[in-house]
Order: sequence, then C-alpha cells, then structure tokens
Amino acid sequence: MPMTRTSLNHHNCSLARTVDIIGDKWTLMIIRDAFYGFRRFKDFKTRLGITQAVLSDRLANLVEHGILDRTAAEGQHPEYRLTEMGRDLFPLVVGLVQWGDRWIHGANGPPILIRDRVNAQPVSLALRNSAGKPVDSSDVEVSPGPGATPATLAEFARLARHA
Amino acid sequence: MPMTRTSLNHHNCSLARTVDIIGDKWTLMIIRDAFYGFRRFKDFKTRLGITQAVLSDRLANLVEHGILDRTAAEGQHPEYRLTEMGRDLFPLVVGLVQWGDRWIHGANGPPILIRDRVNAQPVSLALRNSAGKPVDSSDVEVSPGPGATPATLAEFARLARHA
Repeated sequence: MPMTRTSLNHHNCSLARTVDIIGDKWTLMIIRDAFYGFRRFKDFKTRLGITQAVLSDRLANLVEHGILDRTAAEGQHPEYRLTEMGRDLFPLVVGLVQWGDRWIHGANGPPILIRDRVNAQPVSLALRNSAGKPVDSSDVEVSPGPGATPATLAEFARLARHA
Repeated sequence: MPMTRTSLNHHNCSLARTVDIIGDKWTLMIIRDAFYGFRRFKDFKTRLGITQAVLSDRLANLVEHGILDRTAAEGQHPEYRLTEMGRDLFPLVVGLVQWGDRWIHGANGPPILIRDRVNAQPVSLALRNSAGKPVDSSDVEVSPGPGATPATLAEFARLARHA
C-alpha cells in the first residue's frame, strides 16, 4: 500500500512518517484486533469485512515495517503477532478508543472496555511532564529539534514572527 | 471526505468511529499543524503541499465534526482553531510523533521537540491504571462493554473459546 500512496517521508516530521505506515483505517483496525488477541487471516477478514486482497496488502505492509511478525508452523495457518515495535502502539490504540468513547460513542456507553487485569478498573492515557504532572497542549511548547531540516526551521521561524 | 469513503460506523467500536473521522493522513497532519499554531488556509496549504480541493475538503470535515472552529472576522482571512474536542486529541498527536521518534526517525534525532513550557523537559505519554502505575498491553484486558452489540459479544465469546 505505501508503494501506491503519496509518500509523506519527505515531510520532516515523525508524525508524517508514522502516518505513512499506520495512518490507514484498515491498518489501524488490524492493529486494534491484534491487541484484542486475534491472530489469523480468517479472523481479521471476518471482523473487518474486507476483501482478501486488501487484507493481504495491509498485513504484508505491517510485517514489512516490523509491526507484526508472521509465523507459520508446519501444516498450520500462519499467525500474525505484534512485535515489540507493534506493542508500543498500545497507548495510541487506547487513546483512539477512549477519545471515541468520550466524544462520539453512542448513547449505550463504550462498546469495549480496556481495564487493568488485576483490579478491573479502567486504564487511562495521560501526557505528563518530567515531574509526573499531567499536562495539556497549553502547557507544552513545540520547537524544531536536532533532526529539523532548514525548511522546518524556516517554517517555525515564520510562525514565531506571526505569533 | 467521509461521505465518499466506506463508513466504519457499522463497526461497533469507538476506534472505528474515531478512525472514520480522523484516520486520514492529511487530516492528522492538519490537526498536528493546528497544535503547532498554524491557523490559516494558506499556511496549511504551504506546509502540506496539497491541493486546494483536498485541503478544503479536510478542513470542512474537521469543522463539521467539531474538531476545528472556523472564525472569520470581517475583511480578514478565516482562521481554524482547535475546539475542546480537538484539543483533546493532543495526547494522540504526541503519541504518534513520539512513536515515530522511537521507531522510525532518522539518524539526526527528532525533527520536532515537544516540551514542558516551564522546565523545557520532554513530556511523555503513558498508560496508567487507576492507582497511577504505568501499564502496558500485557497488564490489560479487553472485554465487551455496555454498548457492545450482539455481534461484538459473539466475536469476543469466540475469541475466548480459542484462547
């Protein structure tokens, strides 16, 4: 799939690069289902109701980028499991689910609960500063980092002049 | 844009509904730029290098769903600002950027720094349980909630039998 899409890699931004790999609705839903415990092609296909071709393409993309591992024991159906890189997407998946729960879920309450195994209480995602205090967008400043290109530096300089 | 795409609303999942609204690469990059402080059509267009038509479509979608507010003072260019619902996406934007920083950024280091205004230290996203302890996907269980449809209940029952 990324081969046929406009690549965002020329954008000097980790979000752009991330979105280029996982910013596709079916890809995100496959990752979600992998966290829910689904592992087989057939299960993903049933859950998502997509064609074999689209699912194969998305799974190959996820394996190629190191997010899913494909293992096939002899005579068994292949299984797809999240790698360490893939498991590191868990806070994002929870964030997407909980944002939807807060802002757009139906009147019946959350369709899915994501809870601590030990005490069955909800887990939650929070942005914190180095002292562990919750912060939001107004507490934070965004600035060019060591990997910024001249174009990125120029855009932020222009933004600072306008502000 | 959602009008011409396959709607995921029939999926009984807050992630599917969220992805249906914001799970588009340009939409996510517009939201990112709105957090960085960009507000005008021309700025988004320059930053993203997309056509007027695509940008108009994505901005209209974000306004329609209540993520951006469009204000136009007389004789001024309209400005697009994040609403409360939009600002609540900040942890997700930080999560996308930081996942990219960890797993796919270039050798030069992060292009963009997201830091606490007060002490200039990095902020970080973490999933925590109700006692404030960091948790990961292995500490968490996913189960049908009050808003689950019979189909969702059946799928999770099937998963439990296979596990």
